[in-house]
Amino acid sequence: MFYIGIDVGGMSIKGGIMSQSGNLIHKFSVPTASGYDASHSISADVKSCIDGLLAQSGVAVSDIAGIGIGHPGSIDSERGVIRYSNNISLTDVHMVEELQRDFDLPIYLDNDANCAALGEYVYGAGKGYRDVIFVTLGTGVGTGIIINGKLFEGRAGAGAEAGHMVIRQDGEACNCGRNGCWERYASASGLIRQTQEQMDADPASAMHAIAAQSGGVNGMTAFCAARAGDESGRKVVDRYISYIAEGILNLVNIFRPDAILIGGGVSHEGTFLTDPIQRQVDRFNFGAQFNPPTVIKAASLGNDAGILGAAALVTQKH
Amino acid sequence: MFYIGIDVGGMSIKGGIMSQSGNLIHKFSVPTASGYDASHSISADVKSCIDGLLAQSGVAVSDIAGIGIGHPGSIDSERGVIRYSNNISLTDVHMVEELQRDFDLPIYLDNDANCAALGEYVYGAGKGYRDVIFVTLGTGVGTGIIINGKLFEGRAGAGAEAGHMVIRQDGEACNCGRNGCWERYASASGLIRQTQEQMDADPASAMHAIAAQSGGVNGMTAFCAARAGDESGRKVVDRYISYIAEGILNLVNIFRPDAILIGGGVSHEGTFLTDPIQRQVDRFNFGAQFNPPTVIKAASLGNDAGILGAAALVTQKH
Repeated sequence: MFYIGIDVGGMSIKGGIMSQSGNLIHKFSVPTASGYDASHSISADVKSCIDGLLAQSGVAVSDIAGIGIGHPGSIDSERGVIRYSNNISLTDVHMVEELQRDFDLPIYLDNDANCAALGEYVYGAGKGYRDVIFVTLGTGVGTGIIINGKLFEGRAGAGAEAGHMVIRQDGEACNCGRNGCWERYASASGLIRQTQEQMDADPASAMHAIAAQSGGVNGMTAFCAARAGDESGRKVVDRYISYIAEGILNLVNIFRPDAILIGGGVSHEGTFLTDPIQRQVDRFNFGAQFNPPTVIKAASLGNDAGILGAAALVTQKH
Repeated sequence: MFYIGIDVGGMSIKGGIMSQSGNLIHKFSVPTASGYDASHSISADVKSCIDGLLAQSGVAVSDIAGIGIGHPGSIDSERGVIRYSNNISLTDVHMVEELQRDFDLPIYLDNDANCAALGEYVYGAGKGYRDVIFVTLGTGVGTGIIINGKLFEGRAGAGAEAGHMVIRQDGEACNCGRNGCWERYASASGLIRQTQEQMDADPASAMHAIAAQSGGVNGMTAFCAARAGDESGRKVVDRYISYIAEGILNLVNIFRPDAILIGGGVSHEGTFLTDPIQRQVDRFNFGAQFNPPTVIKAASLGNDAGILGAAALVTQKH
């Protein structure tokens, strides 16, 4: 049997056919439309992606055990409904019901961060652990929580939004309406903002040349500079790491997982990023001397985590 | 059948015999010793409490289905071990194993905050919900988390320490080693400190007379003054409530429970406390328009929550 995983993003809908051993034997994608309405539904585009996968791979529908879909936003995974999504502007889309008209297969829908967590858990850096939290540092901070081998999503799939945990009360305004959310500080967007601010404060920093060379400030600018010995770069990186570690420590004290995996572009910094976080976690977790440790690791699947995790919804979730 | 619940505290070891319908038919307590060592173990005092309960109630051991014990500190509930406890200074006490020598019954040990949560869930303000978080505002902030009707304690029982979630990075020093933990601000001790500070800043506040009348500043001083229209009292209460709400909102975004129950002395303020928290939670929870609400309520069992919850370990946990 094979499994189909679909990862819906703001730019494209990416799909893959996964073998029983967890290999992606075929990938296909279609662009995400700039807007959806009654005449052109997102479910129709997901269907096109599935049709393309089947046609190009030559795998028969009868060999597919099920379809899993990861979608951004607030997902009611129990009912298979996109409650609402910001970046792809949608509310109340009954995607599973709509796709079930075309595919007589088990179909599961979940939040994309949850799918990525499941992917890393089953096939990636989280393999072999029981309790794992996957933290994606991107535009925002997404968190996927695996407890005892199962996704924990909160009631009606409306939890696991640890990016919107306030770590600096009365801090920077977040688009969720609160101030000081973790994602304001620990996201890649936050890092870029922090880098820009430090560059403004220090015209002599090596970050200026590094940014110019790569066509502008990005999530690597400060890390590059820090590695090269630039003090301002080091300062940005140290502070950014303290933001990540603060939220991770909160999650350790609440969940005490075996491992916390860090994903997103910045995770390519590897142990340069994870070692100092590990040190802070080891030192400051509650009852550190007596309680079991939590390992901090970079995620390993990159962009495929979403597709593999969506496919794994079929095998793992129910 | 009957169930024995034991609630170990710094001052006394309180026990109760609970009927199948959840009534405490008999209570008994023994004082907690000022220190324990090889010659005088805490397990021996717990045994005395159980012996006293049985002797005074006349209930036969053969009619007891099991014993549950709530103990402060870091508890390995899977192994029945007190990993360490601060206020009763203990490390690595194998309490279940020790008691099993005297009682041939199922015996369960868990953190006292978890037991209180379970008590409120099964017999108190949490009855009828599926996912409930119990937050006790006392010397510290204790949290007990019920997911899908079961205690969630983190790996090896070392999680559910949301009192040690930082909400104000670089804030007040906490005895756990971090800065800005929720319990520094939202505990009764925090409230008393905040009250004292505001009194120092405002010698004309009604809080001075209120405190003098009750023999000193306590957790009711600011609430009393606020109800009487004192502006400084109102200021303390508003800020204190914003601290409680900030942590509760974090928990809502992570767990999205049906209800969050507030316990501890300050919960006697009732809706004067819970209404403004409910308003902040309703307004600022993530995706408030689309996601299911979380109810904020005062706990209802008072001091019996710990005993009832410990007894409920026997019926609920395994």
